Amino acid sequence: MSAAKNERIKLLPLGGLGEIGKNMMVVEYRGKIVVIDTGLMFPTPEMLGIDLVLPDFEYLRKRADDIEAIVLTHGHEDHVGALPYVLREIGFPKVIYGGMLTVGMVRSKLDEHKLGAAPLTELPAGKKVDAGPFGIELVHLSHSIPDMRGVIISTDLGNIFFTGDYKFDQTPVDGRPADVARLAALGDEGLLLLCGDSTNADRPGVSPSESSVGPALYETFSRCGGRIVVTSFASNIHRVQQVIDAAARLDRKVALVGRSMRKNFNIASNLGMANAPDGLLIQPREIEDYPDERVVVISTGSQGEPFSALRRMANNDHRDIELHSGDTVVFSATPVPGNERAVNETIDRIYELGAKVITAKDAPIHASGHGYREEIKMMLNLTRPKYVMPVHGDFQRIRLHSELAESVGVPSENIFRNHNGQALMLGSDGAEMTEETAGGVIYVDGIELSDPNDASLRDRRTISADGIVIVVATIAADDGEVVVDPELIARGVPGLEDDLETIEELQDLIEDSLERAAEAKVREQDLIQQDLHDAVAGFIHKRLKRRPMVVPVVVEV
Amino acid sequence: MSAAKNERIKLLPLGGLGEIGKNMMVVEYRGKIVVIDTGLMFPTPEMLGIDLVLPDFEYLRKRADDIEAIVLTHGHEDHVGALPYVLREIGFPKVIYGGMLTVGMVRSKLDEHKLGAAPLTELPAGKKVDAGPFGIELVHLSHSIPDMRGVIISTDLGNIFFTGDYKFDQTPVDGRPADVARLAALGDEGLLLLCGDSTNADRPGVSPSESSVGPALYETFSRCGGRIVVTSFASNIHRVQQVIDAAARLDRKVALVGRSMRKNFNIASNLGMANAPDGLLIQPREIEDYPDERVVVISTGSQGEPFSALRRMANNDHRDIELHSGDTVVFSATPVPGNERAVNETIDRIYELGAKVITAKDAPIHASGHGYREEIKMMLNLTRPKYVMPVHGDFQRIRLHSELAESVGVPSENIFRNHNGQALMLGSDGAEMTEETAGGVIYVDGIELSDPNDASLRDRRTISADGIVIVVATIAADDGEVVVDPELIARGVPGLEDDLETIEELQDLIEDSLERAAEAKVREQDLIQQDLHDAVAGFIHKRLKRRPMVVPVVVEV
Repeated sequence: MSAAKNERIKLLPLGGLGEIGKNMMVVEYRGKIVVIDTGLMFPTPEMLGIDLVLPDFEYLRKRADDIEAIVLTHGHEDHVGALPYVLREIGFPKVIYGGMLTVGMVRSKLDEHKLGAAPLTELPAGKKVDAGPFGIELVHLSHSIPDMRGVIISTDLGNIFFTGDYKFDQTPVDGRPADVARLAALGDEGLLLLCGDSTNADRPGVSPSESSVGPALYETFSRCGGRIVVTSFASNIHRVQQVIDAAARLDRKVALVGRSMRKNFNIASNLGMANAPDGLLIQPREIEDYPDERVVVISTGSQGEPFSALRRMANNDHRDIELHSGDTVVFSATPVPGNERAVNETIDRIYELGAKVITAKDAPIHASGHGYREEIKMMLNLTRPKYVMPVHGDFQRIRLHSELAESVGVPSENIFRNHNGQALMLGSDGAEMTEETAGGVIYVDGIELSDPNDASLRDRRTISADGIVIVVATIAADDGEVVVDPELIARGVPGLEDDLETIEELQDLIEDSLERAAEAKVREQDLIQQDLHDAVAGFIHKRLKRRPMVVPVVVEV
Repeated sequence: MSAAKNERIKLLPLGGLGEIGKNMMVVEYRGKIVVIDTGLMFPTPEMLGIDLVLPDFEYLRKRADDIEAIVLTHGHEDHVGALPYVLREIGFPKVIYGGMLTVGMVRSKLDEHKLGAAPLTELPAGKKVDAGPFGIELVHLSHSIPDMRGVIISTDLGNIFFTGDYKFDQTPVDGRPADVARLAALGDEGLLLLCGDSTNADRPGVSPSESSVGPALYETFSRCGGRIVVTSFASNIHRVQQVIDAAARLDRKVALVGRSMRKNFNIASNLGMANAPDGLLIQPREIEDYPDERVVVISTGSQGEPFSALRRMANNDHRDIELHSGDTVVFSATPVPGNERAVNETIDRIYELGAKVITAKDAPIHASGHGYREEIKMMLNLTRPKYVMPVHGDFQRIRLHSELAESVGVPSENIFRNHNGQALMLGSDGAEMTEETAGGVIYVDGIELSDPNDASLRDRRTISADGIVIVVATIAADDGEVVVDPELIARGVPGLEDDLETIEELQDLIEDSLERAAEAKVREQDLIQQDLHDAVAGFIHKRLKRRPMVVPVVVEV
């Protein structure tokens, strides 16, 4: 079946553009949809009480029946974390594809959300499957988690390649470098569009190999006298393996600390991707049974997360480990942008306890999972796309990625810098961007999904700055006269709770307001409340220079 | 008068140890006190509604009459920002000393706080004055603000030197390098204690000279086609001067944008420390009257501050300047630790608007004001102190500074790593640290000073996470029977406000609780309220997995 003249492929990014996080791309053709990745983002401190941030997938909700497949590039939260919420809201699609470890990690996540029946299927790299008007094929690439897969979506209008997160690691720990031959063939076949990772579009050269980290860890460990606590991303199975290998060579026992660290290691070792010599692993509670110089702890918390194992250690609040002078904490990770303060705080608390800290500034004990500028150019040169849409980056990195594409010969009019929610339409007659139509975010707020414009967050913001004042006025139902002295309850208003004089003045003010209303025979609750609100809010602002939320309650008896 | 055997000097750091910010040191001898610096810190996002953080100066409140002098090393907020609050609480000391620009900037600040009568006095470097049992002498040093002064406090037990913030800039913009001769003489005279800046104790080598920034700015500007917006600290007068000079050479007009930028430039030019050629400066509202390539804007906002001029420009919300493609924003500053996210966000918004950004990563357009490791060693070698107390640093940098002191021959037992509130006692028979006695912080919360354990902040934190529920129960005063249907008001509780079913269930629950109380003839308001609280809080947690603040109000009629 060949494409009709007016048929077009629609690429709709729901997340991941103009930001690093919550990657999600809708590919639509002939009324059918494939979704590439369903990622989430973690909230910033201003998002009071918010637990997670998801792309707004309203577009999918309306089109649930048209979804042929969801394809997951790899198991990181910014690529798979929204999946349970998406499935809960729109039901199961026909199939969910991913690599072996991705499927293993996501299965465990879906089980926790009681979504174990989802049609999660491993798709081996290189095997092409059909999904409605699409062909789907995964391409093996390297990244900071095993089983990273780029995604070829083929249509009769041409092929589209989604790189996911990748680097061209020539010596990956598992000995399986990126499938450059397939990428080159993709270029030979003629690629319509490349959607490529922009994360490190600002870093010159080539990223260091993951396998260069192992010897640096060994060298670092061998200079440590006491206990060693290594922190890294729990999903970086090869990093954890290299820590285990270095510990084994130095005759140190290894304790895995933190829930996700143990979970991911178990999944990976069940899949034969990670292993520890018999007797090497010990339980966290056994750490104190061994001499300091015979122990390596591998811990979560490399980003300074508030309730992580390492943060607890830094706060001297961990059940099994008390850090002390002689201990060395090794950060085999760098702070994700935005986490710098949390990481610095954690490091300084560790120093306060007398332990030492070694970071990637001191020794080459970390390697990024994202390719640098020369690797991005290599991806472009291998696949030789007609059109380019840089993804997975903030506006700066998307701009830099665009410049790299131009530098290797992609005409600037063929490079598209989309926003979230702004579609790219690809036809046999060319490509064009539409207006922004979708986009936006959803908050996960405890167990609920909520709109960021939701009143409850707005209210929390108001109250978090200046507190709340509640006025309870009890008046007679017949004549509006005050029946009981009004009550005034303040919470979180700086300087008000102990200021009896101001509170008394406020009570007088409230009574005056109610009496005026009664005299004027104002009987509408709304008007009485509005009047109370304005009187109280105005007085507090004048007196305390604060704007708390004021909630008047009028009870008629 | 010579010192008696048992007399001791007490050094009590109230701020600046284990943190970068709110520097404040109390020097006490023979019942008299000199205070070195009165700095503040800016709040972290967790400090909801807090405007400023000050050292807890309770110790000074009780000893106000004993304060001989407050000495200010330089005009940065982390060294002078708490002064208005200190003066408001403890009254004026006999004298407040500082360098010329420091006095100029602080006078303007005190005027705004209606404290213009404070005894603020310029003390020329090298002039020794008496203050009770102390001698005070300022030593000229270089930093990222002019008129930086180290402080020699002399007593008959020996001399103490407070470096303040310094670097050994051999080619400062004003041609006045640090007074190395005086430091060497201080060493020759025999120095009892050095309290030195630790900020860059982690950076190897020597800091670049401020005057190396000017040529780099010129070179950067000369490659810009459109408008140039430079952002830097408003207090860095020499930096602003160098931007003006580069603009003048390139025949561009200069607009100073942001309140503190204009204010500091005015103070400095009135003191003859800064100047612009006639006709060079234009008003912000005139920017649009000139061709893009003829304009340089110098703006506040280098730290991504929420209401700063640059942040407004990035949000497309500035009255006078709309950033667009062709504009270049030059960050002639680096993010202070903790501000990385705000700065990155600002940069990315600028990219989103189509403008370019150049930072200190791209060109050498910034120089730190704090000396690096070799400079810290040079300070130690020049002054050859018997004792060392590293200050102005987090725990890590204080530790690194201690190691530097050891490396130049200070015995480790003579190096003291104090905490805030932990005094060092110096006598003719030796030195020792006391327990932590003072320390702590005060929050500035609107117009009030408040304790960080203040209930209002704790309440705001609780409410900011999960919201607040107010229950108003109106019962008969005689028998406790429910008179009017109870009211339930929720604000900021995710998922509650629209969930009518849950609200109805809650109302039933409240009525049940009140009826039980009436039947059991419970008449104590406290008990009724406690019962309501527990019923409502328990139900909401079970249903919504949230723990909002629950405030029961019982009205008896």
